[in-house]
Amino acid sequence: MYLLKQKILDEGIAITGEILKVDAFLNHQIDPALLRELGREFAKRFSDTNPTKILTIEASGIAVAVMAGLEMGLPVVFAKKGKPGTMTGGVFYSNVKSFTKDTEYQIFVSSSYLTESDRIIIIDDFLARGDSIMGLLDILAQSGSILEGVGIVIEKGFQEGGEKLRRRGIRLESLAVIKDMKDGKISFC
Amino acid sequence: MYLLKQKILDEGIAITGEILKVDAFLNHQIDPALLRELGREFAKRFSDTNPTKILTIEASGIAVAVMAGLEMGLPVVFAKKGKPGTMTGGVFYSNVKSFTKDTEYQIFVSSSYLTESDRIIIIDDFLARGDSIMGLLDILAQSGSILEGVGIVIEKGFQEGGEKLRRRGIRLESLAVIKDMKDGKISFC
Repeated sequence: MYLLKQKILDEGIAITGEILKVDAFLNHQIDPALLRELGREFAKRFSDTNPTKILTIEASGIAVAVMAGLEMGLPVVFAKKGKPGTMTGGVFYSNVKSFTKDTEYQIFVSSSYLTESDRIIIIDDFLARGDSIMGLLDILAQSGSILEGVGIVIEKGFQEGGEKLRRRGIRLESLAVIKDMKDGKISFC
Repeated sequence: MYLLKQKILDEGIAITGEILKVDAFLNHQIDPALLRELGREFAKRFSDTNPTKILTIEASGIAVAVMAGLEMGLPVVFAKKGKPGTMTGGVFYSNVKSFTKDTEYQIFVSSSYLTESDRIIIIDDFLARGDSIMGLLDILAQSGSILEGVGIVIEKGFQEGGEKLRRRGIRLESLAVIKDMKDGKISFC
């Protein structure tokens, strides 16, 4: 997606060969008009599917998932990194490692909002090692919901997450796939 | 705002006299079309101000803040509940208590995204005791940014947050103000 790649080249910073900082427009400061375009692109790419819901994970997946939900006319559920007092009743949960924060945490989804009759598109901002997506897939398996596909804003093509999903036969739509970030220079696949 | 109040009456659950569960459409499952209307309402109410940015706090403030940003043509910055490895350079931070989770945590905003020349509208999903808003105001004070006003989706009128802000002369726009939730019945002011 040209608009996104251009934004990454203009405002993204390769802090190391592995860590890309895009907090100017995606995951700290957010550009709502750009995210609306990303939502439109996801709607276009998944237009041959028949989803009932979008699933994402807090926090930085929420903005793009909501824009995709707006475009597709679907509700969005975000997995929570902690169980709030208001989450009464049945709960699905899984364990997730954070690559950028080097921590492990649990994610929770109320069983009221994922059922056997749901067909899900998972949307997230980043795909690196795929740990958070694996956590969401674990929750989907518990719920009996069907997975239609996974939509990612930025896939780090040099890490194993994308390959892991494709090997499982999962349909993956990444709007930008980074080949490498050698000497601070960002290259796309 | 009639549409919102009706949604709260239809789908909100008063778990206790103090805790309102609206995770069917606002802070776990999200209704993007409703949130777009909330964004439009904030844009209308703040149409006499001249903001440069919207500030919110992860996670459940993000969706509504992004919709307000889309309507107002403004970038959105969300305060993070933890300092990621990508947050290099100067940082503002403050301490916040969580009412529903009964915990205390720190919030962080990169100093790159709040400056003395910014005029800010703070947007959040809930106002109860006002602790998270106080944390954001503390960060605004550190940055030298000017506050244009605070926009809240649901204010719990029976808790002190709203009164605290109004007493400080802060412009507060709450789309629904709950008077009380006696015996599971939700009443608005």
